[in-house]
Parts: sequence; structure tokens; C-alpha cells
Amino acid sequence: MADQPLIPPFGKKVHLEDYDPSFTNGMSKDDAKAREKKLEARMGELQEMLYAQGTQSLLVVLQAMDAGGKDGAIKHVFDAVNPQGVGVTAFKQPTPEELAHDFLWRVHPHVPPKGYIGIFNRSHYEDVLVVRVNQLVPQEVWEKRYEHINAFERLIAERGTRILKFFLHISRDEQKRRFQERLDDPSKQWKFAMGDLPIREQWDDYMKAYEAVLTRCHTEAAPWHVVPANKKWYRDLVITQSIVQALEEMEVRYPDPEPGLESVVIPD
Amino acid sequence: MADQPLIPPFGKKVHLEDYDPSFTNGMSKDDAKAREKKLEARMGELQEMLYAQGTQSLLVVLQAMDAGGKDGAIKHVFDAVNPQGVGVTAFKQPTPEELAHDFLWRVHPHVPPKGYIGIFNRSHYEDVLVVRVNQLVPQEVWEKRYEHINAFERLIAERGTRILKFFLHISRDEQKRRFQERLDDPSKQWKFAMGDLPIREQWDDYMKAYEAVLTRCHTEAAPWHVVPANKKWYRDLVITQSIVQALEEMEVRYPDPEPGLESVVIPD
Repeated sequence: MADQPLIPPFGKKVHLEDYDPSFTNGMSKDDAKAREKKLEARMGELQEMLYAQGTQSLLVVLQAMDAGGKDGAIKHVFDAVNPQGVGVTAFKQPTPEELAHDFLWRVHPHVPPKGYIGIFNRSHYEDVLVVRVNQLVPQEVWEKRYEHINAFERLIAERGTRILKFFLHISRDEQKRRFQERLDDPSKQWKFAMGDLPIREQWDDYMKAYEAVLTRCHTEAAPWHVVPANKKWYRDLVITQSIVQALEEMEVRYPDPEPGLESVVIPD
Repeated sequence: MADQPLIPPFGKKVHLEDYDPSFTNGMSKDDAKAREKKLEARMGELQEMLYAQGTQSLLVVLQAMDAGGKDGAIKHVFDAVNPQGVGVTAFKQPTPEELAHDFLWRVHPHVPPKGYIGIFNRSHYEDVLVVRVNQLVPQEVWEKRYEHINAFERLIAERGTRILKFFLHISRDEQKRRFQERLDDPSKQWKFAMGDLPIREQWDDYMKAYEAVLTRCHTEAAPWHVVPANKKWYRDLVITQSIVQALEEMEVRYPDPEPGLESVVIPD
């Protein structure tokens, strides 16, 4: 398959069948891994500067079907960052207290403060994905959420949070392969949940719901990346690269020293 | 200097002058680094099992004088752990809202839930350290806090949280050297705060306050480690070793698979 964009063109409907989940841009696994290691080290440096500077933050949103690689990506992409500057929030099924509020109420407190990287493992997008596919609320409710999400993301972007959203795109076959691997490998069985199977049955409905998300909540302030994720090494490289590029664009740097620092004498 | 215990004997007054901050147990830097790398990899494995098992948690408390190496230890010791399973909380000067509550109110929400490692960069101990040294509350108030802390730590330990507390012990000379390094290195100047100098003047008072903490809040459920921290590589090795040992003792392991997993067939 020919070249394919990582970031879909803005303002156009996204069709996922145009995106090959096995795309690797002609790279070999070894090349990709070597490149990623280098970028990881650079990410570590940039993160320290982000933290030191303390004026901007970065939010990374990860969405995918089950076994799409969200956990693996977090583990591998953020290898070299200082855990002190990173907060990961895994959004699970909402609690009764969370359901007693608007859908962004539980998300808002986890937006990364200045200096920090925040990672969402699933996110507010579940409220237009699982909720839409299963009609957990009426359509007139979930329909309005796309605009609420855009407004929310604009709010935090204007305040200095760079937002990068990644849809980890795997094929249905690849999901089957990974489920089977979880069943077969004793150290992975804990990741397998019977409940994942009925969700697999809804694959096509989920793809439609993802296409709506990728089309309607895809803005320059908070762009989606459609990450070809059948190959884990390519997935990790693409995410790492995108984050490093964003941090470079943010021009993070060490802050100026306190005035008068040059004349300080430290007493014994 | 001869051998010195990492964990002071229980029930005895701790005198910090008995603990050499430059102690390295006869190890070379290269040996220590190689050993630490291996232990880090093991920590990564154990953490995944802790997470998978989801029945216990680990709380790591770090306390030190300024430039004692809390940030550096976090960065280096937790290199290989998945950031998803780790939460770092840096306790700063309390906000007005926090001050309107008891001193443990702001700490409690950050105790790691089952499956997680929580790291406290500073902690509730500040309320018997900076608060005591500067008499920010009357003695009759801070005096009672040692017992409150012991009760609190017992509470969370009984619920399945293993607690490891590390005092990173540096000498006054070493602090001066590190301050000077921060002044001289443009990439470290942001770490230097003028406000650190008056605190340095109170060194002896702080050592007394630390000795009280190390004596009065040193329990089998939540032991203190006096980490010789003049050498960063020895500090990191000691902390890594202690955490790995604790996780081994906790017998973390992958949970049993859901019953019936062997007969699951994944549909196309």
C-alpha cells in the first residue's frame, strides 16, 4: 500500500478502511527500534526541560480496541521519562459517583498541570464509543458530546496544554492473534477477560463510532493520529516520534536563573 | 568505617553521626551500577506481577535535606517500571485548603491502591520536620503527630500496603558541593532556590528532627532506611535493592486465570 497520513486531513470524513493497520512505511523492525531508542533519550531531555520550565504541559490520549496496545505503548514509549513528571490515568467503567455528574467531570481533574505530561489510557472518548455503540444514553445525549469534547479540549489547549490523540489501529485478525496469545501464555492470561469477546462481536459498530470521533473531534488544537498498530515496534516509533516533535515545537527550555544567582556564596 | 546497618535497630535512639553518608560497603561504582541495572530489570518484572495480581501495593517514602537526591533517585531507580503502575506525589508547601484540615488529609488520597507503587517525594514527615524546626505549630501539636503517623501507617499496612521509608543521608559538605554545582551548571540552575540557603543554616536542627523521626516512627510495619547518599550510585543501588527485596517478600505473582479459559474459542 502507498504512503498514508498519520494525521488525517482536517475537515474530511475519515474512512478507516483507507488506513492499513500493517503499514510500516517500508521500515525494518531493527531500524525502527534503533531510531526509537534515540528518540526516547531525546524525550527524556525534553521532558526535564518541560518540567523545569513549568509553563506548558502535554496531554497524550490513547484509544484502541481491546489488545490494541495501549498498555504496551505506555510501557515502551515512556521508558526514558522521569516518572515524577508523568501521570497516567486509566479510565475504567465509571463509578456511580462519576455517573452522577456530566461526563467530563471525572476527566477534568487529571488534565496535566504545567510542567507535566499526562497520559490518558482510554478517556472521555469512551463516552462516544462504548456509550454510543451500546446506546447507554439516548442519541440526543451522546450526539452533543462531540461538541462538548471540542470545547473542553480548546479550553485546556488555550491554557497551555498541548494535546496529542492516538488511535491505535489494529485489524480484526490481529486482535484475534493477540487474544490467542493471551490465552496461551500463562504470564498474559490475566489480561484476558471473557467480557472482551462480546465487544469483539461489535467490531464494525466500533469502527463506525471511531470514524465519527476521528472526523468530528479532529482539530488543529487536538489532532488525532491514526497509528498503524499491527506492528508494535512501528506503533511505538510513531508515537515516540510524534511526542518528541511536539515537545520540540513547544520550544521547551530551561528557565532563566533567579536574578542574582552569580553572586551567591554558599556558606560552610 | 566499619559496616553500618541500613535499617537502624528498632526501639533504640538513632544518632545520625553513627551513620557515614559516604559509606559504600567497599563497592566500586562500576560494580554498583552493573548490579543496579540487573535489579532494575527484576523490579520491572515484579511490578508487572504486582499490577496483574492487584491485591497488594507498595509505598515508597523519600525524605532528605535539599539536594539530598530525592528527584535523582526517583529518576534512576524507577527507570524500568511501567509508568502506568506508578504514581509519584510531590508534597509541597501546603495550600490554604490543606492547612484547613488535619495534616494527614492531603496525604491519604495518594496512598497507592492495590496493584500500584506509590512514591512520596517528601511526605507527612514534613509536618514533624520543617514544622518542628520552625515551630510552625506549637510543640503540643507536633508532638502528637508521631503517634498519629504510626497509627496511619499501621492502618494502610494492615490493608495490604507495604511501606518502605528512605532517609537519603548526605553530609553538610556534600550539600554545599551540590548547591555549587547547581549554580555553575546552566542546565541545573533552575533547581537552585535562594530559599534553600536559610534552611541550610538550620542543618543541626534538622538533623535532630530527623533523628526523632527515625527513632519514633521506625516500626516493623514501616521501617526507615538510612541511605548513605553522598555517592549517588550507592544510594540508587541501596534503594533499588530494598524495593526488589520487598517485592520478592510480598510474593507477587500472576493471578490464576479466569476459570474456563482453556476452552475459549475466539471467533473470527
